[in-house]
Amino acid sequence: MLSFDTTDAEYLDELAGYVAIPSVSRDATGETMLAAAGWLAAQLSFAGGRVVPTTGHPVVRADWLQAPGAPTVLVYGHYDVQPTGDLAEWRTPPFELTVDGDVIRGRGVTDDKGPVFIVLKVAQAFLEQEGALPLNIKFLFEGEEEIGSPHLPEYLREHAEELAADLVISADGAMWRPTEPSLSIASKGLLTMTIEVTGANGDLHSGRFGGTVANPVHALSEILASLHSADGRVAADGFYDGIPALSSERRAEIAAVPFDEDTYRAGLGLDQVFGEAGYSTLERLWERPTLEINGITAGGKYTVIPHVATGHVSCRLVPGQRPERVLEAITEHVLAQKLTGVRIAVHPDEGAVPAYTIPAGHPAIRAAAAALEEVYPDQDVLLAVIAGTLPATALFEEVLGAKTLFFSFSTADENLHAPNEFMRIPRLREGMRAWEQLWRLLADGPHRLAP
Amino acid sequence: MLSFDTTDAEYLDELAGYVAIPSVSRDATGETMLAAAGWLAAQLSFAGGRVVPTTGHPVVRADWLQAPGAPTVLVYGHYDVQPTGDLAEWRTPPFELTVDGDVIRGRGVTDDKGPVFIVLKVAQAFLEQEGALPLNIKFLFEGEEEIGSPHLPEYLREHAEELAADLVISADGAMWRPTEPSLSIASKGLLTMTIEVTGANGDLHSGRFGGTVANPVHALSEILASLHSADGRVAADGFYDGIPALSSERRAEIAAVPFDEDTYRAGLGLDQVFGEAGYSTLERLWERPTLEINGITAGGKYTVIPHVATGHVSCRLVPGQRPERVLEAITEHVLAQKLTGVRIAVHPDEGAVPAYTIPAGHPAIRAAAAALEEVYPDQDVLLAVIAGTLPATALFEEVLGAKTLFFSFSTADENLHAPNEFMRIPRLREGMRAWEQLWRLLADGPHRLAP
Repeated sequence: MLSFDTTDAEYLDELAGYVAIPSVSRDATGETMLAAAGWLAAQLSFAGGRVVPTTGHPVVRADWLQAPGAPTVLVYGHYDVQPTGDLAEWRTPPFELTVDGDVIRGRGVTDDKGPVFIVLKVAQAFLEQEGALPLNIKFLFEGEEEIGSPHLPEYLREHAEELAADLVISADGAMWRPTEPSLSIASKGLLTMTIEVTGANGDLHSGRFGGTVANPVHALSEILASLHSADGRVAADGFYDGIPALSSERRAEIAAVPFDEDTYRAGLGLDQVFGEAGYSTLERLWERPTLEINGITAGGKYTVIPHVATGHVSCRLVPGQRPERVLEAITEHVLAQKLTGVRIAVHPDEGAVPAYTIPAGHPAIRAAAAALEEVYPDQDVLLAVIAGTLPATALFEEVLGAKTLFFSFSTADENLHAPNEFMRIPRLREGMRAWEQLWRLLADGPHRLAP
Repeated sequence: MLSFDTTDAEYLDELAGYVAIPSVSRDATGETMLAAAGWLAAQLSFAGGRVVPTTGHPVVRADWLQAPGAPTVLVYGHYDVQPTGDLAEWRTPPFELTVDGDVIRGRGVTDDKGPVFIVLKVAQAFLEQEGALPLNIKFLFEGEEEIGSPHLPEYLREHAEELAADLVISADGAMWRPTEPSLSIASKGLLTMTIEVTGANGDLHSGRFGGTVANPVHALSEILASLHSADGRVAADGFYDGIPALSSERRAEIAAVPFDEDTYRAGLGLDQVFGEAGYSTLERLWERPTLEINGITAGGKYTVIPHVATGHVSCRLVPGQRPERVLEAITEHVLAQKLTGVRIAVHPDEGAVPAYTIPAGHPAIRAAAAALEEVYPDQDVLLAVIAGTLPATALFEEVLGAKTLFFSFSTADENLHAPNEFMRIPRLREGMRAWEQLWRLLADGPHRLAP
């Protein structure tokens, strides 16, 4: 076992220097982004850490490949952070790492600077204490995750050979809840589109023309209302195509997860939950695809008949669904609505992402579960689903042919993307211990990764 | 007959000075508004024209009451104008009166500076050529019509006795079309409200919560879609209460109005017209109440479940409908929708206005029709309806007990409120001749107004 005998204060001091760099990928200067990348590269000097210029913000790369015959893993994370939003909502300055009881606060502290810091410290400890890592490790940290990784596909495709690995381990992602360790065995896909209804050649005075022409907002309302039936199912024929029936085993597994619906409901300020008939809230969240209207726009408060009305729709997909088939089903459903005097169009956004899944029996999941059990000996490891979408997973699978294991010590309730982002301090040491175990288990023993 | 032998160029020169004052009530300085009011007061010096400070922009008042035993009319109009909107859309500078063929262009030229100019010239000609007006005339011009006359009710109530008249004649309003003279025998009422649907205590991530809670945008869409039945009728029970059946006489009158539906439709860029089943387009426009959604707002393009969705609704009312009953009918209908997991509220705006009507047989309509027939000897005078809402009419009836005759020589197609507002030059002289006749006819003869 490695010894992590640096004090908390020393760790936090070092992490504070990283958090202090305001690497907001949406609007920081190139200089600022380079400073964050440079900080990371310096931490990776044991493996030739370097900043690699690419289209967009640079990536940080490093390789330690001195374990011949051992498996190779690619560790992924990001050094960019979300914008702060309204500074008035922050209790402490966002780029000043602040200790508050047993949490640390600051923009990026849990997404993804703290979780990446864990990996750095583990690798450094191996080198210092044992002179080697237990397996071959390639490091790839990008600077554009928070803006949708627009240049990652290009970079991966151009460096597929150099990045080849038996497994990707992501230091990004988050555990589901703070109350127990969990691993994600799937993440949902994403398909988004805009439904546009057009009427006359301009906005019309609602007095001078009212009642004589179709109102595009009425029509859009009809269309949006038609997308679900009263029992909460998506009404577009074909939407659910390809999804295997939920097995009774998985139902039992989910039913066994401690989950208090009243707490969930009350936390959202709601009187009732609502969703697809025949499924529990957790089943809806983890196992079923969804269709949500994210926004609607038309006219304003003035007395016009707007000539354009738009609705933005997103679908979260589950394994078995093909994005192009879902788009087709929705488009057909929308265009089949009988509406007089308006033109209807469905404009899909680019970059649809299928759902991602890694089998519960995959060596990486087994090794990760075993590692977590060592760190949290009294707790069951929960197999959860990320109901959000992580486009990199599908990309790694497509380009590198490798599955991705999410192994983050961030928790989903830590105000990721919101003001007052925080991370639980004990997670840092728990994470170090767990990454150490994970690497050892993947290198050797019953969960050894096939190279 | 008066002689209007001033040249067009001289008239337009004078009007240009008035149009040059950018009296945009929404954002002009007090000084600018005062300059426009002062210009008007000076033109009314023959009747003691004066600027009267009031809450908000001042009113302009004048009285010529030297016709004992003759009826008294109150002439109404306004000196404020709409904002210009985007200057790039104007072909000529908005506050420079420009002659272009047989039209003059400029902000306010037809709403309401040109039509008011006509009245001034007629009154001045009477005084110069005959030494007297044919009846007692009070003048009231406000400076806040384009922002909803917020202080007119207060002013009228406080000066009801001073303003008492047998008839109000409005120099504001517009003829329906340029192709024939028309008089308005009704204007529609207006009731507006916001429908608000609320869900959770904040916007939710559509992945992390999608499919487990009701989406307020879905609910709003259901509500808005439910407001009409498929045949275009308003579905709220009680909406049509109190409206007399459309008489076969009125139907025949409307059917006789030359109106080419294809031209109307094509002008709006539409393939089809649409409206309440059982009525023609003109019947829908003039005789039937309408309910239109003017705007919807929720979320945006991001993948959230918005926690609030709002729709703004306006109803144009016809005689017989009570605004409070209509509001009640819509509110009951909205709240009766069966929607789980959301809160629904209807927020009416202040200032609902009932429909206004003046009988076709009213002496003012008869006199006005006769005046128009003298000016347009070969054309029938059309009795039309203003499908828009003119709140002042209801106010004059309530406070002064007087009906309002709209006698404007503006036409509804002259880009009122839009860029490149214009007025047809011949309407100026036609208007002068018609106002002269109108005043003479109201003072004496078969259409004399009962004082």
